[in-house]
Amino acid sequence: MRAGVPAVSREPRTAIATVCLSGALEDKLPAAAAAGFDGVEIFEPDLVASPMPPGEVRLRCADLGLSIDLYQPFRDLDSTDPERFAANLRRAEHKFGVMEALGTDTVLVCSSVAPDAVADVDLLAEQLHAVAERAAARGLRIAYEALAWGRHVDTYDRSWEAVRRADHPALGLCVDSFHILSRGSDPAAIADIPGEKLFFLQLADAPHLSMDVLQWSRHHRLFPGQGAFDLPAFLEPVLRAGYAGPLSLEVFNDVFRQADPARAAVDAHRSLLALAEATAARGQGADPVAEPAPELRGHAFVELSADESLAPVLAALGFARTGLHRTKPVERWEQGGARILVNRSGGQVAVAALAVESADPTGAARRATRLSAPRLPRERGPAEADLAAVTAPDGTAVFFCRTGAEQDWTGDFVPTGETAPGIGVTGIDHVGLAQPFDHFDEAALFYRTVLGLEPAATAEFAAPFGLVRSRAVVDAQRRVRLALTVSLLRRGEWAPGVSEPQYVALAVDDVLAAARSARAAGAPLLAVPDNYYADLDARLALSKDRLTAYRDLGVLHEETPEGAYLQVCTEVLGGRVFLALVQRIGDHDGYGWTDAPVRMAAHRRRRLAREHVRTRL
Amino acid sequence: MRAGVPAVSREPRTAIATVCLSGALEDKLPAAAAAGFDGVEIFEPDLVASPMPPGEVRLRCADLGLSIDLYQPFRDLDSTDPERFAANLRRAEHKFGVMEALGTDTVLVCSSVAPDAVADVDLLAEQLHAVAERAAARGLRIAYEALAWGRHVDTYDRSWEAVRRADHPALGLCVDSFHILSRGSDPAAIADIPGEKLFFLQLADAPHLSMDVLQWSRHHRLFPGQGAFDLPAFLEPVLRAGYAGPLSLEVFNDVFRQADPARAAVDAHRSLLALAEATAARGQGADPVAEPAPELRGHAFVELSADESLAPVLAALGFARTGLHRTKPVERWEQGGARILVNRSGGQVAVAALAVESADPTGAARRATRLSAPRLPRERGPAEADLAAVTAPDGTAVFFCRTGAEQDWTGDFVPTGETAPGIGVTGIDHVGLAQPFDHFDEAALFYRTVLGLEPAATAEFAAPFGLVRSRAVVDAQRRVRLALTVSLLRRGEWAPGVSEPQYVALAVDDVLAAARSARAAGAPLLAVPDNYYADLDARLALSKDRLTAYRDLGVLHEETPEGAYLQVCTEVLGGRVFLALVQRIGDHDGYGWTDAPVRMAAHRRRRLAREHVRTRL
Repeated sequence: MRAGVPAVSREPRTAIATVCLSGALEDKLPAAAAAGFDGVEIFEPDLVASPMPPGEVRLRCADLGLSIDLYQPFRDLDSTDPERFAANLRRAEHKFGVMEALGTDTVLVCSSVAPDAVADVDLLAEQLHAVAERAAARGLRIAYEALAWGRHVDTYDRSWEAVRRADHPALGLCVDSFHILSRGSDPAAIADIPGEKLFFLQLADAPHLSMDVLQWSRHHRLFPGQGAFDLPAFLEPVLRAGYAGPLSLEVFNDVFRQADPARAAVDAHRSLLALAEATAARGQGADPVAEPAPELRGHAFVELSADESLAPVLAALGFARTGLHRTKPVERWEQGGARILVNRSGGQVAVAALAVESADPTGAARRATRLSAPRLPRERGPAEADLAAVTAPDGTAVFFCRTGAEQDWTGDFVPTGETAPGIGVTGIDHVGLAQPFDHFDEAALFYRTVLGLEPAATAEFAAPFGLVRSRAVVDAQRRVRLALTVSLLRRGEWAPGVSEPQYVALAVDDVLAAARSARAAGAPLLAVPDNYYADLDARLALSKDRLTAYRDLGVLHEETPEGAYLQVCTEVLGGRVFLALVQRIGDHDGYGWTDAPVRMAAHRRRRLAREHVRTRL
Repeated sequence: MRAGVPAVSREPRTAIATVCLSGALEDKLPAAAAAGFDGVEIFEPDLVASPMPPGEVRLRCADLGLSIDLYQPFRDLDSTDPERFAANLRRAEHKFGVMEALGTDTVLVCSSVAPDAVADVDLLAEQLHAVAERAAARGLRIAYEALAWGRHVDTYDRSWEAVRRADHPALGLCVDSFHILSRGSDPAAIADIPGEKLFFLQLADAPHLSMDVLQWSRHHRLFPGQGAFDLPAFLEPVLRAGYAGPLSLEVFNDVFRQADPARAAVDAHRSLLALAEATAARGQGADPVAEPAPELRGHAFVELSADESLAPVLAALGFARTGLHRTKPVERWEQGGARILVNRSGGQVAVAALAVESADPTGAARRATRLSAPRLPRERGPAEADLAAVTAPDGTAVFFCRTGAEQDWTGDFVPTGETAPGIGVTGIDHVGLAQPFDHFDEAALFYRTVLGLEPAATAEFAAPFGLVRSRAVVDAQRRVRLALTVSLLRRGEWAPGVSEPQYVALAVDDVLAAARSARAAGAPLLAVPDNYYADLDARLALSKDRLTAYRDLGVLHEETPEGAYLQVCTEVLGGRVFLALVQRIGDHDGYGWTDAPVRMAAHRRRRLAREHVRTRL
């Protein structure tokens, strides 16, 4: 533990490398500024391709309120060939000139991957000292970084050893979470490096992948909180060492590289705020950026935009229309703890809003705003009560409610007095939301940080029209569950219009009884092929009675050692949404993804059959 | 070497696993049949999701002329737990019933990955014997396959050892090229396995990737000839052993899984014909499927569909309009050995056709047809001469010509007598063709097999709007070069309409002189940022004069130890095509991809500037 750690201001300084964002420099800089970043790292290829001379980039950044915190990267500096090293020093002097024009004082030099890279640490230190001396002469400094795939220097202790021996005030380290955590190195010893020698910090998350580390780095980095790395545990020793520079992102990601930079920058900035918060919770760095996420207590309601076709289905599923909105074409339907609002204002049938029960709706909304969640325009809300609401990355409105509190949202509805016997629905188990291709990781981070949910199960499965990736986010008590899905490749022209629908999973204690009642009442339940039950029989040897009932009702049955997940689905209503009756047995914590391809094929068949009928009429 | 090898018929029997194709069984079966496959492997999840009972699938296949050659996969058969093994035998009996209804006699059993998998080879042989005995009782047989990631059995010699010890006539091997080649195993010893014990053969290619073999297998397999495996060297010992079953494809690929199955099936079938041809060339298997690709002698012409804006640019680049088509609105422009046809029939400015000089155009066309290349509808050709022509996967017409032969295509044009001094263009260096996302690998295989080109350089680079993958295909003498590119992810809504243009690279001996002349004549050359030249200076220390000339003319300079590639590009003409003046120095065999991001950013800027002007007018 080091003494004299400088106090870090409440708001951490944030920066982003321009390589994280799509487009040209003229797209990236305004996007970074608008998202709230304090500075940028200028990625050299972005500058080289830009028509703006460095001095103009400097002015543009100043206009936008952005500092230029780093110029990067300078590759393959050291060399066993003196002539080559001399040429590299000449190249460095050229880049120093660029930096002066940019008005930035630090350049990232990464460890060499070239065949002539220097293995001897003393010679390396000597060459680093030489370049630092030249930098210092121009008021500049060198941040030396170990690439995970560097030829001789591939860990931070090796880079620190070279920097320590070079012993030059204009030479320090750049530490990058990806390079360190991808190799499984323990970051704890970073705390022992003098803080003034930590010139720069680059942050990236990533999923655990068993692949070549260079390819992993170049294609699959993620913003903090989107991957599997423990970044608070990485940042803690860096701050403890006394690092006083910005938290800066360097993320190479195939999806972000082609996505709207304005959106990606907001996502990126949110990731840093959440990381600072999580690290503060470990006792390092700034005060918490936002107040903690208030406890969630369940789904308050789901609002569906719909035409007149939805109400009969809800009735057949045992829901009663319990209220009519005082001023808007919105109905409240209820059964057990499940509440569905049907909004007939028009538009595609879709999940228009999620509402969660929050211990502190106002605090939750403040936190959401602090984390750059866009506030929902007031007129979009279904309720008159001043519900705190934000918009999720896929456009779904998210409301924070406290049903039962004074002036809660239920007061906006005039009770109809209608009741229904119900079919045993006890509440909303979860909501399934197919995400737009470019925003899957953004959505997971949004729900994680803004609502305080945690990532749970993930899966990839072969759907009839391509692979689908799924990720659930849940609260600790499993009272709020969301299942996010995305196609692994953006859909093309084959099978156009086939996209994964959204759904509301309704919890029941006895799916067979519930499905029987629903069918008797005319609910449009989805037929499941006999072949599915033949396979189920081969695999699980269920009782004949049970199999017969399953076959009859279209039950999908997923079994794991922990328990089982039974579901009966309706047809897709209005092209975008279906409802499911879901029974969890034992400790099953999944979402029926094993059966999703069968369900998706059945939904597609049903759609084609309908279109066929329509064509013949 | 074994005696008594059965003669293989001229046409190899071909099959495809349904998992290779997108959609449901009702999409896949007709696609396979239409592409010319003789049979299919039914992938169990496809059957399970299908509403067709197995007996109906049997009839459907019979109607389509498809045999069902394999049912697959049966997983995790063996077990150290007797109770579990008994349950697995029960499961197998269920699947045998499915096979009887399907009318197929062979099931693929793959080596177990489960914790209870049997390590002891004698116990494993005993369990395989037991299941073979049950299969035999129903007239069925077991093809046992070693998964590359099997728990204990992960190489073909281990699977063969178990099968040999089990010694049951209803038990044989399935050998899969991916599982064997991905582990670097030598397939030569397959020739020593008795042919009658090789029950089935599955073929897949793949790129060399350093990653977890299971993920590599599930996402990145390719059809033979599209990857890096030496499949003729694999197939040879299999045929030498006396394998008499079909050549069957089992390819898990993220792109194919979501692409039009009819297209993918044609691509797949072509890959098997080409593989059979290459294997026959090694002295095994069938006679060659098609006659060899006749020698290529260069680019005969490129046809551009265009409006009136193109002609002035060609003139400024030193081309003369040497001929007018007798009956069509097509002009012939020439300079040195470069010929460009300008087709004013309408439509987007685009590369409408490639024409190659062939030693035997008629033979080349016969070969193309044999390899399922679609014949070009006659009315689409620019020429009256009966040019042999086919359509490439991206819709480009490909003509086989023999310029100078009797009745060649040049006779269709009335000479204008026009001449021009030229700017030094000597011929067509190559043509750049951006490919549709779903058809990149198909295109590379098409050019490789149909034209007899070989894959050359490949690269991936970070373009301003996402990663781009490039692959060149060339003839052995480098007289015909095509550069294919594709976005690594299908483009989304950000920066819509920005797609990589097509181009024609014109060979010159002195790019500076040529560009000077072109600019003096008013050619719309692309401006390159000063920052690019500052970086070039830092990296290469070129002479000041050269740098000044480069800067002045917009020369892009890519240098490798082998030589240099210098290019000057025009603006994108009509939104889709640009022309480039290209000088190769030394043995440079590349395509300027290092500079592509700079060029692409400049093209985009130019387009935005034009749109801006248009908006203001």
